[in-house]
Amino acid sequence: MNQLGVVKRNIVRAEQQHVAHLGQFGSATVHEAMGRVGLLKPYMRPIYPGALVAGTAVTVLLHPGDNWMMHVAAEQIEPGDIVVAAITADCMDGYFGDLLATSFMARGAKALIIDAGVRDVRILKEMGFPVWSKGVSAKGTIKATLGSVNIPVLCAGALVNAGDAIIADDDGVVVVPAADVARVAAIAQQREDLEEEKRARLASGVLGLDMYNMRGPLQQAGLTYID
Amino acid sequence: MNQLGVVKRNIVRAEQQHVAHLGQFGSATVHEAMGRVGLLKPYMRPIYPGALVAGTAVTVLLHPGDNWMMHVAAEQIEPGDIVVAAITADCMDGYFGDLLATSFMARGAKALIIDAGVRDVRILKEMGFPVWSKGVSAKGTIKATLGSVNIPVLCAGALVNAGDAIIADDDGVVVVPAADVARVAAIAQQREDLEEEKRARLASGVLGLDMYNMRGPLQQAGLTYID
Amino acid sequence: MNQLGVVKRNIVRAEQQHVAHLGQFGSATVHEAMGRVGLLKPYMRPIYPGALVAGTAVTVLLHPGDNWMMHVAAEQIEPGDIVVAAITADCMDGYFGDLLATSFMARGAKALIIDAGVRDVRILKEMGFPVWSKGVSAKGTIKATLGSVNIPVLCAGALVNAGDAIIADDDGVVVVPAADVARVAAIAQQREDLEEEKRARLASGVLGLDMYNMRGPLQQAGLTYID
Amino acid sequence: MNQLGVVKRNIVRAEQQHVAHLGQFGSATVHEAMGRVGLLKPYMRPIYPGALVAGTAVTVLLHPGDNWMMHVAAEQIEPGDIVVAAITADCMDGYFGDLLATSFMARGAKALIIDAGVRDVRILKEMGFPVWSKGVSAKGTIKATLGSVNIPVLCAGALVNAGDAIIADDDGVVVVPAADVARVAAIAQQREDLEEEKRARLASGVLGLDMYNMRGPLQQAGLTYID
Amino acid sequence: MNQLGVVKRNIVRAEQQHVAHLGQFGSATVHEAMGRVGLLKPYMRPIYPGALVAGTAVTVLLHPGDNWMMHVAAEQIEPGDIVVAAITADCMDGYFGDLLATSFMARGAKALIIDAGVRDVRILKEMGFPVWSKGVSAKGTIKATLGSVNIPVLCAGALVNAGDAIIADDDGVVVVPAADVARVAAIAQQREDLEEEKRARLASGVLGLDMYNMRGPLQQAGLTYID
Amino acid sequence: MNQLGVVKRNIVRAEQQHVAHLGQFGSATVHEAMGRVGLLKPYMRPIYPGALVAGTAVTVLLHPGDNWMMHVAAEQIEPGDIVVAAITADCMDGYFGDLLATSFMARGAKALIIDAGVRDVRILKEMGFPVWSKGVSAKGTIKATLGSVNIPVLCAGALVNAGDAIIADDDGVVVVPAADVARVAAIAQQREDLEEEKRARLASGVLGLDMYNMRGPLQQAGLTYID
Repeated sequence: MNQLGVVKRNIVRAEQQHVAHLGQFGSATVHEAMGRVGLLKPYMRPIYPGALVAGTAVTVLLHPGDNWMMHVAAEQIEPGDIVVAAITADCMDGYFGDLLATSFMARGAKALIIDAGVRDVRILKEMGFPVWSKGVSAKGTIKATLGSVNIPVLCAGALVNAGDAIIADDDGVVVVPAADVARVAAIAQQREDLEEEKRARLASGVLGLDMYNMRGPLQQAGLTYID
Repeated sequence: MNQLGVVKRNIVRAEQQHVAHLGQFGSATVHEAMGRVGLLKPYMRPIYPGALVAGTAVTVLLHPGDNWMMHVAAEQIEPGDIVVAAITADCMDGYFGDLLATSFMARGAKALIIDAGVRDVRILKEMGFPVWSKGVSAKGTIKATLGSVNIPVLCAGALVNAGDAIIADDDGVVVVPAADVARVAAIAQQREDLEEEKRARLASGVLGLDMYNMRGPLQQAGLTYID
Repeated sequence: MNQLGVVKRNIVRAEQQHVAHLGQFGSATVHEAMGRVGLLKPYMRPIYPGALVAGTAVTVLLHPGDNWMMHVAAEQIEPGDIVVAAITADCMDGYFGDLLATSFMARGAKALIIDAGVRDVRILKEMGFPVWSKGVSAKGTIKATLGSVNIPVLCAGALVNAGDAIIADDDGVVVVPAADVARVAAIAQQREDLEEEKRARLASGVLGLDMYNMRGPLQQAGLTYID
Repeated sequence: MNQLGVVKRNIVRAEQQHVAHLGQFGSATVHEAMGRVGLLKPYMRPIYPGALVAGTAVTVLLHPGDNWMMHVAAEQIEPGDIVVAAITADCMDGYFGDLLATSFMARGAKALIIDAGVRDVRILKEMGFPVWSKGVSAKGTIKATLGSVNIPVLCAGALVNAGDAIIADDDGVVVVPAADVARVAAIAQQREDLEEEKRARLASGVLGLDMYNMRGPLQQAGLTYID
Repeated sequence: MNQLGVVKRNIVRAEQQHVAHLGQFGSATVHEAMGRVGLLKPYMRPIYPGALVAGTAVTVLLHPGDNWMMHVAAEQIEPGDIVVAAITADCMDGYFGDLLATSFMARGAKALIIDAGVRDVRILKEMGFPVWSKGVSAKGTIKATLGSVNIPVLCAGALVNAGDAIIADDDGVVVVPAADVARVAAIAQQREDLEEEKRARLASGVLGLDMYNMRGPLQQAGLTYID
Repeated sequence: MNQLGVVKRNIVRAEQQHVAHLGQFGSATVHEAMGRVGLLKPYMRPIYPGALVAGTAVTVLLHPGDNWMMHVAAEQIEPGDIVVAAITADCMDGYFGDLLATSFMARGAKALIIDAGVRDVRILKEMGFPVWSKGVSAKGTIKATLGSVNIPVLCAGALVNAGDAIIADDDGVVVVPAADVARVAAIAQQREDLEEEKRARLASGVLGLDMYNMRGPLQQAGLTYID
């Protein structure tokens, strides 16, 4: 999976229409619709709150303390892409700042997902370029070692293939395989439709115990009420 | 302490008037007034800054990856309560989202304190329902195993009994035993009264060294000034 | 390095004009200008986003759970100083709150950098007194054991001498030795000047691959493009 | 729960005969027999492998960096006791070394459980005095602040009352309330008896799938075999 | 990748002869021979030192706190296999103890690799059944939820396919894709052959600086010797 | 402090006789004799138990994932030295294995202290070459970037100058400035002499409460005995 020194140019991106549809839901709903798989580890946090993005993955595999391949990745970006960066070992260095963000935005990138550190976060927020990362660090990186672009990568505990759909918001980051976006978006829509109604009933004071018919199963499981 | 499958319905809540009084102070002042006990571990952080809540605890003990008892807890909520959720093992799953929050708010809950993860945090912020948690995760939970409600729980390193007062703000979460709220509120008030005056003196340039008469004790302890 | 019970009164502060110059750049640029040294560990985070400070270090060495020397340090503060607090062992207690902040501000301090916890963070934000810390904790400290002021300290993995320049923002905290501020500010300025132009070119769609002439070296290193 | 400056002299210890019985099982079996409660957090590890102890708790509450109350606790030790030490805040200092171990052993203590650091670990191993701790640190502590002895303490996430039974081995540390030792020992014995037979069957090649009759439930749950 | 409720029965195992060959080298040498990919995160540690195993992977995907599928996996074990267990979320529970180990050994398993906790570690050591895990915990698990067997899993940051070769020792755990074992073993052998000679020269006092001809490149890079 | 690309050849080593004297005590005693400073962070653990070393520091500053300077450091080793390796950013890679150990031993090195990972740990144990490290990792490093040798380094939170004495055992690692070794050894000897007598008295059943005359101060501090 981890061939080094390779750039794959032609990748099959998830269909834009379905990716956009997925973008109407949050990462939690999409994760449920996926059957509870595809979530990156919860240490991946946005550098500022409130962003919600959906796009197609351009993947990049980097070495500790080395962001050379970020520039190689930039050329592979098409409008609507989200760069997903994995590192071959744990590293908190600041791989990405406002210059790269300027370049990525010029190419049409919507966000960066990186299992490492990032810097210039105040400026990135002003620019409106969201990043989900393991942390923040002012420490820069060198440009010395080859990695790869658009090969499958393991990013924060999840397998991401180039072209997969990425949904990220304040709850985290979910990857949806390109082949599954239509199916997952449909399930997410169903789920969302149901939630609207549930929300209204709960707001009116109906209990989940009754709405979900839980009282019987709870009693059967042995739940005891005492005073 | 950890009986499973039990819901205690009648609990003695800390007196509302004293809980409200405690709510005029922050968690730091209340913690001091308690004699520096009752603080939950500092990894418990608010999902958005600026909230300050005071309420009475409805406790719930949950299993890893299972939020079934949250619905059982919802029924036990009375206006002014704060749900305090402990897990039987370390878990970062997102036990709580906007639907449960809707239900909790409809019952009059003021906040959730949970030693696990939470999701839908952007919506929770919009709803104005504050949560203090160990983290954020889009990963949902199942509903399969009994826990308990309103038994004493160990939450983030602190013992919480149903009915205890909970004070939470940006500095953390403090639990005050129901029997102690009047006494602790009185001490906190005294402390706060003194602080007003101290603040004014310090703002005018008086040094703590002089205001607290520390120069003598420091000299006695052997403090040496060199140039 | 860690003499206990000593307060050094006369310290040589980095020249104000150069410290101010450094303050025009962020911590990332200054860290680069330093040759990538002088950064405190990235776990040091601001208690609220958006602050950027530059000042001269007043150092203080404290014991776990004891902030007595903070008051001794207050007297050594001159306008434009930033207090840098190290602890002799790992500790997350809240060493600093709004009263000490009031005193520090009255003395002209611009910020606190502390390898421990802090409290009253909502009020500190209202007061506009920024703090970079390891965390937040409502737990207070005692005043019982001597530490030292203005001796060299190891704070979050960096050596800080009294009088050194401190630059802190959302990306982290950098220390610049007092003797180096003019040189480092000059390099940072050069770097910044270059970045302006680079930013414009990248924004126009030029790739870093071309702007930095990376295609040759990448090919030489063996980078392979596949379709 | 955390009264400071109190030493409770007369405590009710779990009955020695049942504690000894519990000592025939490991912590895992006892934890199961308890209904899966009472386990200290798994970061509590033995300083050397192979020890298995069972005894009655003498509890002590200490402050960060201060082991004064260890000496107060020593006087309360009776033969067969295990000292359980909790700290009011996270601390990794080395609270305990060979001198205190000599004193504890002279009093008849069988082990120490401490939610902090320990030192002289090579000598402790030679002396045969086992310790379960959060870590090891050569850093000593001062003797300046009162704590308490034999009050209920929260140690590594578990509530321990003086006199409770403690079972510790390479798998961790379990606390059994004094009132429950007979009952828990009986359940553990039953469990152990069953395990002997199961072990023999599994060793002969019988699968758990068949021994536990799992094939039906698995099929019902939807398990699918593919080739 | 994460289909739930599926057991793949016929898997293609790496050729036994090449797996045995790989077993003559340690994980470090195999990792180098792989081109520095395939290493599980270094938090995966052996429960006792000194073991070195090489075998073919039977994979199992489990849920937090649930080891039901371990019994399903047992049936798929053939002599020479190593079970590789991944969990759908972070969990430290003790999924595996001496009973399961007895069953696994009866089936011919050589080891367990699990991204979670394990228990009965003293007995496992006596039985000579090595485990590499994230930690140790006496806490058991339930048997309630379906996972899968022999699907590709992400275990401690590495992708493992059923049938892949696993090499584990005190340095960690490496996975080698089944298709690559012959090639990787050959490279590892070459590396090992070279190391023998290097070891002898270094032992005789020759410096790596000379043996690897580093003096020139170091000088070119700007290394300066001062006195 | 962190000049890059510099090798200091002539360093002033702590006097061998006093270093040897320090080596008769453990790290805990030396740390006390130092006045409780000089301890590296307690995450620095030996790769095998039981070793106790004392030697003089050869320091090396390395980059993340790059051990090139280890070979440069090897040439600077004299018999009795201990190599102290710091990294410019957090890194867990295995910087050191049996080949480098062979070279270091041939030069007369007694141990390695490294704020990163190490590999070949089973062989290192067989060779009798002790290492204190942050962890173990089979992942190797490249040789591409200059660091420095024998400049002052910050290793695991402590400042180490070339020539300083290093004392390491199962309790951790302590650095003693070269100029202080005679004084510190004398204090450590005094402490050790006193401990012998104390140990005998405590073993005979005398309580620390009496031996240290603590009963008065404890009463004065307000300690209360209850029944």
